Amino acid sequence: MPFAPLKNDTFLRACWRQATDHTPVWLMRQAGRYLPEYVATRAKAGSFMGLATNVDYATEVTLQPLERYPLDAAILFSDILTVPDAMGLGLSFEAGEGPRFARPVRDEAAVAALAVPDLDKLRYVFDAVTSIRRALAGRVPLIGFSGSPWTLACYMVEGAGSSDYRRVKSMLYGRPDLMHRLLAVNADAVAAYLNAQIEAGAQAVMVFDSWGGVLADGAFQEFSLAYTARVLAQLRRDGIDGQPVPRIVFTKGGGLWLTDMRALDCEVLGLDWTVNLGRARALVGEGEGAKALQGNIDPNVLFAPPAQIEAEVAKVLQSFGRPHTDPQTSGPTHVFNLGHGISQFTPPEHVAALVAAVHAQSRALRA
Amino acid sequence: MPFAPLKNDTFLRACWRQATDHTPVWLMRQAGRYLPEYVATRAKAGSFMGLATNVDYATEVTLQPLERYPLDAAILFSDILTVPDAMGLGLSFEAGEGPRFARPVRDEAAVAALAVPDLDKLRYVFDAVTSIRRALAGRVPLIGFSGSPWTLACYMVEGAGSSDYRRVKSMLYGRPDLMHRLLAVNADAVAAYLNAQIEAGAQAVMVFDSWGGVLADGAFQEFSLAYTARVLAQLRRDGIDGQPVPRIVFTKGGGLWLTDMRALDCEVLGLDWTVNLGRARALVGEGEGAKALQGNIDPNVLFAPPAQIEAEVAKVLQSFGRPHTDPQTSGPTHVFNLGHGISQFTPPEHVAALVAAVHAQSRALRA
Repeated sequence: MPFAPLKNDTFLRACWRQATDHTPVWLMRQAGRYLPEYVATRAKAGSFMGLATNVDYATEVTLQPLERYPLDAAILFSDILTVPDAMGLGLSFEAGEGPRFARPVRDEAAVAALAVPDLDKLRYVFDAVTSIRRALAGRVPLIGFSGSPWTLACYMVEGAGSSDYRRVKSMLYGRPDLMHRLLAVNADAVAAYLNAQIEAGAQAVMVFDSWGGVLADGAFQEFSLAYTARVLAQLRRDGIDGQPVPRIVFTKGGGLWLTDMRALDCEVLGLDWTVNLGRARALVGEGEGAKALQGNIDPNVLFAPPAQIEAEVAKVLQSFGRPHTDPQTSGPTHVFNLGHGISQFTPPEHVAALVAAVHAQSRALRA
Repeated sequence: MPFAPLKNDTFLRACWRQATDHTPVWLMRQAGRYLPEYVATRAKAGSFMGLATNVDYATEVTLQPLERYPLDAAILFSDILTVPDAMGLGLSFEAGEGPRFARPVRDEAAVAALAVPDLDKLRYVFDAVTSIRRALAGRVPLIGFSGSPWTLACYMVEGAGSSDYRRVKSMLYGRPDLMHRLLAVNADAVAAYLNAQIEAGAQAVMVFDSWGGVLADGAFQEFSLAYTARVLAQLRRDGIDGQPVPRIVFTKGGGLWLTDMRALDCEVLGLDWTVNLGRARALVGEGEGAKALQGNIDPNVLFAPPAQIEAEVAKVLQSFGRPHTDPQTSGPTHVFNLGHGISQFTPPEHVAALVAAVHAQSRALRA
């Protein structure tokens, strides 16, 4: 059964570096705890994983921010740690503590035992993709996603969040052979996972390299970037309805390595707020291998009053500069986003101010 | 009473971009919990502030790493939060929780009440500097330090460490006037504090902008860099014995802003491990306004076996390249250090391997 035709293709066009009449905007973690309706659904589900594994709930919360704000894309509601969970590591979310694995990967035997998981264990994700795509009914495109091989490795070895990455870096520096094996398994698992999301209906995919920025220069290229490239090389190019699927790579704290990332076989690079968009555009936004840029306002801007939010939106749009406007050719384009996930403490009405400001100001910028 | 003449001036020469026969090395937080002798002194002192405020204990722990390793500099044992403590914010260290202020600065009245503290309240720091300088008896130079105005502001507003800097950034974006007033007071206080350390015997000073890297591009320049510059503009140029005092600025996560930092009136820029030293040298290591570079090995390298530590030291030294060797002129120089403070879990014998590798390999690099 085919999906409904797409009514708002602004986000996809910008990903392909095609002209649009406004700068599309979506927000990392846009379906989340800052929305009271999300909190209500989460309470019905009982737990975070209860929410993520239930197709109806996952569909409901994915669409919630679209009911409030004229966002230009939806993103699958899920977690980046579903893949290692399917590998048997035992994921749980303790209240106020973030994710935790019951069986972290800390020695040679544990690394040797790792394998690409049976994708049937992740069926709930693919079913959610199809359900969300149907519920969207062509309003905006649906983005699928995964954590990057390195970011998954951080959680798999540390067993939880970390402030110093001591365990995972001890393995990296002390037993690079084990780290390479772990990352190779992760890369192949992530590629299979994203392909299955595309086959279920995802219209774009994003790799979250949330912890790439904690690596040293040299180590980043060897232990994160190379495995993101390994994922990209295995991805399906076309979606279920024959449309090409753009690929977004976001390395938080990766601004120093943009020139290296230019070589990635993807369409969009996500940037955090430390990066000057104008400089990034000059480095990777034009010519052979050029990328569209996504980002990069500081989520903490959303705690300021609306007038300041509008002024900060203007700074970000002006930092990128006038986007490409010629409908006949491709050129530099910008997808507006936060530089990291939205805070749970964000006032929802401030998000409305941000989205409206991006749409209005970016139209004016093109005039 | 004059201090003993300096026997090892390698560190100071490298700060001034003068040729040295090896690359000097010291380690951020080199006097710390990874050393059993530190833990023993800390136990006698009863608390962290009990240690920092007692001149004899502070002297003892400052010298401990020098007894074990042939380090090329000593750094005052103290904390970056002594200045806001002297402002009356009520600093304490709870076990396993890090620093906490009893009276954080969160509103207009609290900001208005801030003033440069009476330096007499920090007498224990200056007495420690003089005591350490005497105890060193000219072995190596003594570095004094302070947190940067922005980094102090983070703790003063958040009241403790933070993962998202929500409160301090809410003030920055929502009430920039308050943030500017707070930072101006901090800058003048930090300058007075560092000048008093220089008058007490410090032979170099370092500004730790530990949280500069959490700021957005644009905000960094306005709210961190400008106030570090305000500190530098007020510093004494000569030490108590008439020798010029080099100034080091370290912004963790500041690698994207090296070109901006080139304009700082200081001699050395500290770098974390995300920065490619060769690229940094090309950007800020030569020509008008050139800086010496300090850094930048990942402290987690110290968890690997000694052979891997030696290999990683080689990578860092080779990334910087051959330092300047002409005794007649100044040129690019490197002070070896970690990219951040040493971990409390570091095996002390691994530090010995690192220091020996830096000395031996950097001599070979010049041959």
